[in-house]
Amino acid sequence: MRTQVHRFFSSNPADVSGLAVAIAAGNVHPQRIVAIIGKTEGNGAINDFSRGLAIMALGRLLGPFLDCSAEEIEDRIFLSLSGGTEGVTCPHYLVFTVDETPASSEKKGLALAVGYTRSFAPEEAGRIPMILETARVVRALQAQLGVKTDDVHLVQVKGAIPAVPSVLGQSTTREWRCDMAWSRGASALGVALALGEVSADMLDDEMINRDWTQFSTRASVSAKPALQRSEICLVANAAGWSKDFQIAHGTMRDILDVSAIYKVLEDLELRPVCGQLPREQAARVYGVFAKSDADPRGTVRGRRHTMWTDGDISDMRYSRCVVSSLLAGILGESAVYVSTRAEHQGPLGGGPVAIIARAS
Amino acid sequence: MRTQVHRFFSSNPADVSGLAVAIAAGNVHPQRIVAIIGKTEGNGAINDFSRGLAIMALGRLLGPFLDCSAEEIEDRIFLSLSGGTEGVTCPHYLVFTVDETPASSEKKGLALAVGYTRSFAPEEAGRIPMILETARVVRALQAQLGVKTDDVHLVQVKGAIPAVPSVLGQSTTREWRCDMAWSRGASALGVALALGEVSADMLDDEMINRDWTQFSTRASVSAKPALQRSEICLVANAAGWSKDFQIAHGTMRDILDVSAIYKVLEDLELRPVCGQLPREQAARVYGVFAKSDADPRGTVRGRRHTMWTDGDISDMRYSRCVVSSLLAGILGESAVYVSTRAEHQGPLGGGPVAIIARAS
Amino acid sequence: MRTQVHRFFSSNPADVSGLAVAIAAGNVHPQRIVAIIGKTEGNGAINDFSRGLAIMALGRLLGPFLDCSAEEIEDRIFLSLSGGTEGVTCPHYLVFTVDETPASSEKKGLALAVGYTRSFAPEEAGRIPMILETARVVRALQAQLGVKTDDVHLVQVKGAIPAVPSVLGQSTTREWRCDMAWSRGASALGVALALGEVSADMLDDEMINRDWTQFSTRASVSAKPALQRSEICLVANAAGWSKDFQIAHGTMRDILDVSAIYKVLEDLELRPVCGQLPREQAARVYGVFAKSDADPRGTVRGRRHTMWTDGDISDMRYSRCVVSSLLAGILGESAVYVSTRAEHQGPLGGGPVAIIARAS
Amino acid sequence: MRTQVHRFFSSNPADVSGLAVAIAAGNVHPQRIVAIIGKTEGNGAINDFSRGLAIMALGRLLGPFLDCSAEEIEDRIFLSLSGGTEGVTCPHYLVFTVDETPASSEKKGLALAVGYTRSFAPEEAGRIPMILETARVVRALQAQLGVKTDDVHLVQVKGAIPAVPSVLGQSTTREWRCDMAWSRGASALGVALALGEVSADMLDDEMINRDWTQFSTRASVSAKPALQRSEICLVANAAGWSKDFQIAHGTMRDILDVSAIYKVLEDLELRPVCGQLPREQAARVYGVFAKSDADPRGTVRGRRHTMWTDGDISDMRYSRCVVSSLLAGILGESAVYVSTRAEHQGPLGGGPVAIIARAS
Repeated sequence: MRTQVHRFFSSNPADVSGLAVAIAAGNVHPQRIVAIIGKTEGNGAINDFSRGLAIMALGRLLGPFLDCSAEEIEDRIFLSLSGGTEGVTCPHYLVFTVDETPASSEKKGLALAVGYTRSFAPEEAGRIPMILETARVVRALQAQLGVKTDDVHLVQVKGAIPAVPSVLGQSTTREWRCDMAWSRGASALGVALALGEVSADMLDDEMINRDWTQFSTRASVSAKPALQRSEICLVANAAGWSKDFQIAHGTMRDILDVSAIYKVLEDLELRPVCGQLPREQAARVYGVFAKSDADPRGTVRGRRHTMWTDGDISDMRYSRCVVSSLLAGILGESAVYVSTRAEHQGPLGGGPVAIIARAS
Repeated sequence: MRTQVHRFFSSNPADVSGLAVAIAAGNVHPQRIVAIIGKTEGNGAINDFSRGLAIMALGRLLGPFLDCSAEEIEDRIFLSLSGGTEGVTCPHYLVFTVDETPASSEKKGLALAVGYTRSFAPEEAGRIPMILETARVVRALQAQLGVKTDDVHLVQVKGAIPAVPSVLGQSTTREWRCDMAWSRGASALGVALALGEVSADMLDDEMINRDWTQFSTRASVSAKPALQRSEICLVANAAGWSKDFQIAHGTMRDILDVSAIYKVLEDLELRPVCGQLPREQAARVYGVFAKSDADPRGTVRGRRHTMWTDGDISDMRYSRCVVSSLLAGILGESAVYVSTRAEHQGPLGGGPVAIIARAS
Repeated sequence: MRTQVHRFFSSNPADVSGLAVAIAAGNVHPQRIVAIIGKTEGNGAINDFSRGLAIMALGRLLGPFLDCSAEEIEDRIFLSLSGGTEGVTCPHYLVFTVDETPASSEKKGLALAVGYTRSFAPEEAGRIPMILETARVVRALQAQLGVKTDDVHLVQVKGAIPAVPSVLGQSTTREWRCDMAWSRGASALGVALALGEVSADMLDDEMINRDWTQFSTRASVSAKPALQRSEICLVANAAGWSKDFQIAHGTMRDILDVSAIYKVLEDLELRPVCGQLPREQAARVYGVFAKSDADPRGTVRGRRHTMWTDGDISDMRYSRCVVSSLLAGILGESAVYVSTRAEHQGPLGGGPVAIIARAS
Repeated sequence: MRTQVHRFFSSNPADVSGLAVAIAAGNVHPQRIVAIIGKTEGNGAINDFSRGLAIMALGRLLGPFLDCSAEEIEDRIFLSLSGGTEGVTCPHYLVFTVDETPASSEKKGLALAVGYTRSFAPEEAGRIPMILETARVVRALQAQLGVKTDDVHLVQVKGAIPAVPSVLGQSTTREWRCDMAWSRGASALGVALALGEVSADMLDDEMINRDWTQFSTRASVSAKPALQRSEICLVANAAGWSKDFQIAHGTMRDILDVSAIYKVLEDLELRPVCGQLPREQAARVYGVFAKSDADPRGTVRGRRHTMWTDGDISDMRYSRCVVSSLLAGILGESAVYVSTRAEHQGPLGGGPVAIIARAS
C-alpha cells in the first residue's frame, strides 16, 4: 500500500484549481482520495464561512468524478477544513490518496484509515458513551492498519454534536452537553482510552473537561454542529506501506515548548540549523498539525499574557498565531495546520503536534 | 559609568507598583533614570490609550522625586511606551538608570545617551531636513559616549510629527508629510546616515518610504502626533562602562528569519538548546527589541499570508504577534518589545532586532 | 408586466431553502428571476466569504432549472450579495421575478431592467470612459422600460474592476484606477450623468472621487474585483406594470438624516406612529436599500465620532450599523440592505435610500 | 436647591480641558460637583483603559481644588465613566453640580443624591444581602431628597465586586458570584426592590440572573472589579429644586422599541418632527442614559440577528451601536450614554432609557 500527500495552495477558500490541475494531469486519482485536510482563511469562529465555501468547491470539483452529488462528498471523503490562518500561516490543503502500490521497503510508511462512529443520542454527547464509541472506532482503525499503539501518531476527529431535542419544557430539566467543547473533550478522551493513554477507571462524566491531567497526545479534534456521527481519520506508520512519507508526533507542554517540536523533527531526521530547517530539509515537510490554547490561567511560564482579556481579538486567534509562528519559524515553512481549543488534547495550556515528512 | 536595567511587570498599564517598590527599597534612584521603555496591553493603534495611562501613572510616581509636575516627566526621562502585547507577550517596562560607578573591566558595557532634535517645521517633516537633523543628533550622542559606529546597537527614536498649518486654502497646495509613516521613514534614514548605513548621495525626498533597499539595521522608530522635536535614545557598548549588561543586534531579512536572532544570541554568548535558551540563560535576557511588518507583497518566502486581507484584525497586530512568538520561543522569555511598521528599519518585510543581556 | 418581490430569510449564507421551497410550491418560477439582492452575514471586507458561499448555493439550486452550470448563474441573473449584517440587520435576500401578467391599473408599478456595460480596459477604470459607458447602459435600460428620469428610484450597480496589466516595469509609469473606490465613484457618476443629476461639463478625470458636490441620489454601487464589465439593475415605477409593488427614494444628507427616510415613507403612503411604522404598515415594506459612510471629516453635526480612529473595528461596519439601526427602528423591520462606501452616491457623509413597498 | 448639568466634549479620554476652562471661568465650582458621568472611546471590555485614563485626568484636575490627592477623587465625587462610543456616539462627560440656590418654582426640578453601601463580603456578592443593602441605600437617598417613588427616574449604580478569597482549596467548594454579571443583576434588583418594582417575596438567590420577568425600569448598573462597596447616584425630580433641568424615563421592551423613547420625550415636552427633534429642541437635551443588550434569543421581533455569532465583534459593541444610533437619530444629538449588559434592568432584550432636558 502507499499513501501519498499532495499539498495545494489556495488563492481563496473556493480555489481548488491546484487539485483540479493535478487531477487533469493524472497526478491525483479522485477515486483514491481518502482525506482532505486544510486551513482556510476565516476566523475559525461560528461565523467562519470559509470552511463551507471550500467544502462546496471541493464537492463541485470531485462530485462528478465520484458519481455523487456535491453535497455527498462529505460522506465519501474525510474532509477537515479548519478556519483561521493567523499571522504567517499560508492557506493550503493536503490531499491524501491511498493506492495499492506494493511497498518494497522494510521501513514503515505513512498509513491512513478513516472510520465513523454510530450516531449519538443527545444525552450521550460529551459523556461516557461518546468516549467509549470513539475508542471503539479508533481501535478498529488501528486493527485495520495492523499497527501497534506506538505507531499511531495522529487521530484527527470531527466530533459529532447531536441537536438538543426541542421538546418544550424539557430542555431545562437536563444539562445537555451538545456543544463543541464537550464534543471535543469526550472525543479526545476516547482516543486516549483506545491508545492506552488513560485508563478506563479514571473516566466518568464528571472528569470530562475538568480533570486536565488526563489527555491524549495524539488526538486532534474539531467539532461540528449538526454532525450526527463522529468522523475519525487515524494516521500511523505501518509496515507494508510505502516509506515515501512518514509521520511523527510530540506533545507541547505549554505554548512555548519548542523542545517538543525539535523532538518530532529528530524522529523524522530533520535537523534545524541556527534554529530553522535548511531549505532542502524544509522541502521535505508536507504536513504539520498542532492544537493550540491560550493558557486559561493567564500566564505562560510565570509571565502574564493578555490573550484572554483582549476584548477585540479572540484568544483562539491569538493562540493559533503563536503556535503557527513558532512552527513556521522552526520549519521554515508556513503551510501549517494549527487549530485551537485542545480539551484533553495535550496538557492544559499545551497541545499535540504531528509532522508528516517526505523521505529524504 | 554604569547602566543598569531594571525590569518590571505590570498588572495593567497604570500599574507602576514594581518601580515604586524598587524606589522605596533603594534599588532604583529616580534621579538616575534616563529612559523607560515598555510594552502596554493596548492595540497599538490611534485609539490605544494604554500608553497614555502608563505615562500618566509614571508621571504621578516620579514627578515628586524629580521636583517636576507629572506632565513634565516626558521632558525629563526618555519614555517609549509601545502598545500591543499580542499573543504571549508579557506587558512590562524596562527602567534604565545610569550612575558613575567606576567600571573596572576592560570589556565594554551597556551605555545610554539621550538627545533631542530641534523642533521641526511642517514642511521639513518626512523630508531631507528631518533626516539630516536626526543624523546630527545621533552623531552627537555617539560622540558623547565615545563609541565607534560598530558599537552602536540600537537607536530608539520617537519621531516628531509637526501639525499641518491650518491656514485655509493652503493645505491642498502642498503635499504634507506630517504623519506617522513619513516621520518613521525619515527618522530611520537619519539614523542610517549617521551610522554610515546609507550614503548621503542616495538620499532625496523622493526615495523616502519608496526605495526600500536603503535602511538602518539599528533604528527602531515610533512616531508621536503633536511631538514637535524627535527624541532619541542611543544604546551602545562602550569602554569605561560597567560590563554588567551588554547589547547586540541583528537584522531579520524577513519575518521568519530565525537565524538573525540566533546570531544576536551568539554575540551575547547565549546558546539555545533544542531551539530554546535553557532557563538559566533565559534569565540573563533583560531587554528584547524588534520591529515587525507583514510583508506588503502578500507573501513570505513564496507562501501567501493573509495579514493584509483580514478585515477584522490589523496587519500590525498580526506581525507583532508573529515576531514576539518567535522571540519568546527562542529565548524562553515572553517579556519582549516588538513594535510594528518598520519603514527603512531593516529590509522590506524584515526588521531589526536587539537584545540586552546581563553578564553571565 | 409584473414585478414580484419575494423575500427570504437565511439561517446562514448557504441557506437557500426558502427559495427552494417557493420554487417547489410553484410560487417562484426560476425562469422569471431577473435579480437577487441580499445581505449576508460576513464582514463586508476583502475576506468576506459569505457572499461567495451564497452565490455558490444559489448557483447549485438554480443552475438545473436554467440549464446552466452553477458557475454560469451569475451571467444569467443579476446577483448582488452584500456582506455585513451589523447590529439588528437580519440576513435576507430578495428575489425579483418579472412576468407578463397584464397590469390593469392606471397607477405605475415596480419595473426592473438589467443590462451590462462592455468590458473595460484597465486604463478606462475609474475614468471618463467608465462614466460614459455606464451612463449609456443606464439610458438604454430607462428607454427599455419607457420611464421618465423622475420614475427611476434605484440603480444598483456591480462595478467592473479590470485587472492591472502585469507587464513588468510598466506598472509604475501609469496611475491605475483599478480598485473598488474608483470603480464605485466612476460608476455612480455614470448613473448621475444618465439621470441628469450632473452635467457632462462638470466631469473630468480629476473630479472623480474628489469633488463630492457632484453625486447621484439613486446610484447604489458595489465593485467586484476581476469583474470585466459592470452589471446594472435599474429599478423604477413604470406605467403598464402591476402596482403590486412600488418604489420611492430619498437622499440622506448625513448619517442622521431621519427626515429623508420619512420623506420616502410619505411617498409610499407609510406613516410612522410614535417614530415607527405600525405592524401592519411594516408588513408592507419589502425592500430597503441604503448606502452608508462614516463622515470622513470626523464629525456628524458638529459632534466628534470615533468611527475612523478605532483600530479594532472598521468604519464600514460601524456606518452600516448606524444606518441599519435607524432604518430598522423607523420601519419596525430589520431586513434592510445597507452597504457602505458611497462615493458620489449622495453627498459626503450621506447617502441614498430607496424603499420598495407592497400595495396596501 | 439647584442641580446644574454641564456637558463637555473630549478630544480624547484624557482631555478634561472643557471642565478646566469652565472652572477657570467660574462657571463650575469644583466643590459643588457631586457626579461626573461620561462616555469614553474605549471598547467597554476588560481591557478598556480609556476609563482609567479619564479618571486619572479628572483626579489630576480636581484634586488640588478639593484638597485631596488625584487618587482620592473617586471617593469624593461619583464618577461613572463608561467605555464604548460605537457608531455616531460622541465622547462626552456630564458634570453635575448642586448648590443651594433657592428654587422659586412650584414645579419639580432635577435633584441628585449620592450614597454608598457598606462593603460586601465575597459570599454576599450577587446574592440577597447585596440586593437588600442596595435597596436600603436607595431608600435612604430617596428619603434624603424627599421624593416619591414615581419621581425617581434614574438610579445609576457602580456595583461592588469583592475579591474571591484566595485560601487554597476553598475556591472550588463554594460557587462564588464575584463577577460583573452577578453584581449588576443583584444591584438592579436592589433598586427594583426599593422602588417597589419587585416584591420581596419574589426574591431569592436562585432567581437572580435567571428570572428575567423581574426588573427595574430605572436601574442603570455597571460593575467594577475590586470595588468593595457599591456607589449609587439617585436622580429624581424634586420639589424645592430649581426647574432648570428635568428628567424622565421609559422602558424599551426590545432593542427597537422607538415608542418608549417617544414617550420619554413627551414627558419632557419634546416633540420630534419627521422622526427627529428640531434643532432648537435638540439643544434642550443634556443627558441621555440607556442600557442595551443584544437579545440572547438570537432574534428581534422574529427576525434573526447575528450579534451573538460574530466572532470578531462583541455583542456588547453592537448593541450599544444600535441603541445609540436610534437615540441619536430621534434626538438629533449624538452625545448619548449607552452602556451594555442590562441584567434585571428592563425586560430581556430591552432596557431602561432616561433623558435630562433643560427647561424650554
